[in-house]
Amino acid sequence: MNVDRERLRRDIERTAAFGDIDAEEGRGRTVLAGTEPNREARENFADRLDDAGLDVRVDAVGNIAGRWVPESADPSAAPVAAGSHLDSVPEGGIFDGPLGVYAALEAVRAMREASVEPERPVEVVSFTEEEGQRFASGLLGSSVAVGERSVEEALALEDDDGTALETALADIGFRGEGRLDASEWDSWLELHVEQSERLTDAGVSVGVVTAITGITHCEAILRGEANHAGATPMGDRTDALAAASEFVLDVERAANEVAATDSETAVGTVGSLDVRPNATNVVPGEVKAGVDIRDVDRGAMRELVARARRSLARLERERGVETEFRRPFDLEPTPMSDRVRGAARDAGAAAGIETLEMHSGAAHDTMHVADVTDAGLLFALSKDGISHNPKEWTDWKDCATATRVLAGALANLAGA
Amino acid sequence: MNVDRERLRRDIERTAAFGDIDAEEGRGRTVLAGTEPNREARENFADRLDDAGLDVRVDAVGNIAGRWVPESADPSAAPVAAGSHLDSVPEGGIFDGPLGVYAALEAVRAMREASVEPERPVEVVSFTEEEGQRFASGLLGSSVAVGERSVEEALALEDDDGTALETALADIGFRGEGRLDASEWDSWLELHVEQSERLTDAGVSVGVVTAITGITHCEAILRGEANHAGATPMGDRTDALAAASEFVLDVERAANEVAATDSETAVGTVGSLDVRPNATNVVPGEVKAGVDIRDVDRGAMRELVARARRSLARLERERGVETEFRRPFDLEPTPMSDRVRGAARDAGAAAGIETLEMHSGAAHDTMHVADVTDAGLLFALSKDGISHNPKEWTDWKDCATATRVLAGALANLAGA
Repeated sequence: MNVDRERLRRDIERTAAFGDIDAEEGRGRTVLAGTEPNREARENFADRLDDAGLDVRVDAVGNIAGRWVPESADPSAAPVAAGSHLDSVPEGGIFDGPLGVYAALEAVRAMREASVEPERPVEVVSFTEEEGQRFASGLLGSSVAVGERSVEEALALEDDDGTALETALADIGFRGEGRLDASEWDSWLELHVEQSERLTDAGVSVGVVTAITGITHCEAILRGEANHAGATPMGDRTDALAAASEFVLDVERAANEVAATDSETAVGTVGSLDVRPNATNVVPGEVKAGVDIRDVDRGAMRELVARARRSLARLERERGVETEFRRPFDLEPTPMSDRVRGAARDAGAAAGIETLEMHSGAAHDTMHVADVTDAGLLFALSKDGISHNPKEWTDWKDCATATRVLAGALANLAGA
Repeated sequence: MNVDRERLRRDIERTAAFGDIDAEEGRGRTVLAGTEPNREARENFADRLDDAGLDVRVDAVGNIAGRWVPESADPSAAPVAAGSHLDSVPEGGIFDGPLGVYAALEAVRAMREASVEPERPVEVVSFTEEEGQRFASGLLGSSVAVGERSVEEALALEDDDGTALETALADIGFRGEGRLDASEWDSWLELHVEQSERLTDAGVSVGVVTAITGITHCEAILRGEANHAGATPMGDRTDALAAASEFVLDVERAANEVAATDSETAVGTVGSLDVRPNATNVVPGEVKAGVDIRDVDRGAMRELVARARRSLARLERERGVETEFRRPFDLEPTPMSDRVRGAARDAGAAAGIETLEMHSGAAHDTMHVADVTDAGLLFALSKDGISHNPKEWTDWKDCATATRVLAGALANLAGA
């Protein structure tokens, strides 16, 4: 099959113009769900689906699907679906999301032009608010498509100004009807930019994901005693920041050790630290630390959480701080379907494109879809692993190469 | 001499009502320079000086002085001065400042009632904006009184809303004339609440300060690389917060060691830490740390600054971060005058009041005054060493005891 690199490029560049920003370096865009740039990106996508002869449908939470029913297919057969999202983080890149959406459309165009004869319909999908920058914490549209969240619950979500998702979608003309149901799909495959440098390091253009990492967010609070930094002798202090510093280093050490011995994909990060009162001349009284722990191996995640807890217990004994530990967010690791991975590997081999088996350290809509049907995830090489940043970049050649693997995999899954 | 505890209490409690806040525990007030509560506190003070028969003068930057010229005194002799400040930090306590102002007035009243016959006039002083919460970084009025800052420079200082000190003082009727000149004073003695627990630990009510600590504020910036917390393997990170955590612990360790070996009064604190981007799921890219280093021994301060710098150099080598180090603020330690200390010790001994020699870890207007004349500082026992907080508390008995030492010391200095 022949993927048209220039056509794909035009689609992505047109989308890049909606909500585009003046970036010092690279090309950026800000496309939050339900905003004017999001309307433009959605309308353009619906037009492109229509141009390609797909039947367009918008569901109640704004998920968009275009269905191709080839003459060779049984129209009632469960479709093979592919896609990603059109929204971005504030000042994000132009590939994160749109590449997966337009690669899926390009794959359908390529199949048709190559006179491939699939037995199943193929759906091209864009999920609402994957990035979670306005209404939810992320993966919003796919959470409804897999039934994890009801349509009503989703529509009632409000942004910081109190605007409901329902209102925002209605305002841009994308408050549709019904619910896109991912459990009706035979299978699902998403193409996304890699957000690390493993493809670069391996000199390979396309990754076939084995599993999406599990994610736990923990919040640790350490309470000492705020005191005058001049008048409080060293021996009389219970410094919450000094204690929190040991905690940060304990989390880092634990992740280094678990990655070196048990599971090399394990990571542990203290990404945020809020110090009170945070004045140079006051011994810190309280620190809140935000911890991110991820791995494809649930046991390694458990070990890292246990070591974070043990660190706090030690600091209570040794430094006299009081501590609290909460886990507001916890997602299991998600293995990708063997059948979909095989279809992608075979497609790469057939096209003479080398693929690399790798895990995903970032969350994607595919995590949700994998709960209800066979799902897979492909990565395209991304320069320096940069994402959520105007410097995010995937060469057009690499976009096309990954799209060829996607098209072949979809054809395999659709029984062509 | 007999200090009237109830009169002193009434003065402090009346002042506590200006800008008083609803505190969960204790009694708080918010009295920023040039505000309405500050006007009330100033007018009340001027009235009390007047009631006591003192000549009241307000200088161009709002410093207030009341002069008592006893019949026994040479009116042209250099006066002995005492006082403190009337402003507070936001939600501060009721003793920090007002105790020193009204204890000085009470000392004058006590001397007169006891028919003490000083050879010198005595001045009771309140300096403008000691706390530095609106216009400057602190010790504003005394900086003008010692000529460190010109009247014009001070009046031009603006608050966050762009209101100049000159305007704010004029608005409350305290933009006076001329400049209170501390270099014309024979000597100076300030009574202030202790902001640590050394008096409590020693079971003594009154401290005679040997030296006020030197203070250096340093700002350390550590730059790593912000990265996706899930997609960046442990080995590929340059985590600015992990590096900063080592820095915090290095500063603490250095201060513990210097305090244990070289100078037991040395303290080192990382009081503030600002993390960017400070998101749980992002490896921190940059951290700014605010460091407070103090001691009465300049050599110990130099050692702590050197060790903070060495820590950053080590982190550059070992963790690959880039670092910057700045020292925006540096005050030498200030030894108190032997003559004034002796006058205070003698006064305590004569009244049968035990005094404790101790250093001050906090800055006071007396630091400035000591640059131009013989200056001393007394501490009154403060419950649990709490200050800048509604829970700040000094028993009325301890207020009166410290005021007896102050009155005796002023009488000694004034040649009574």
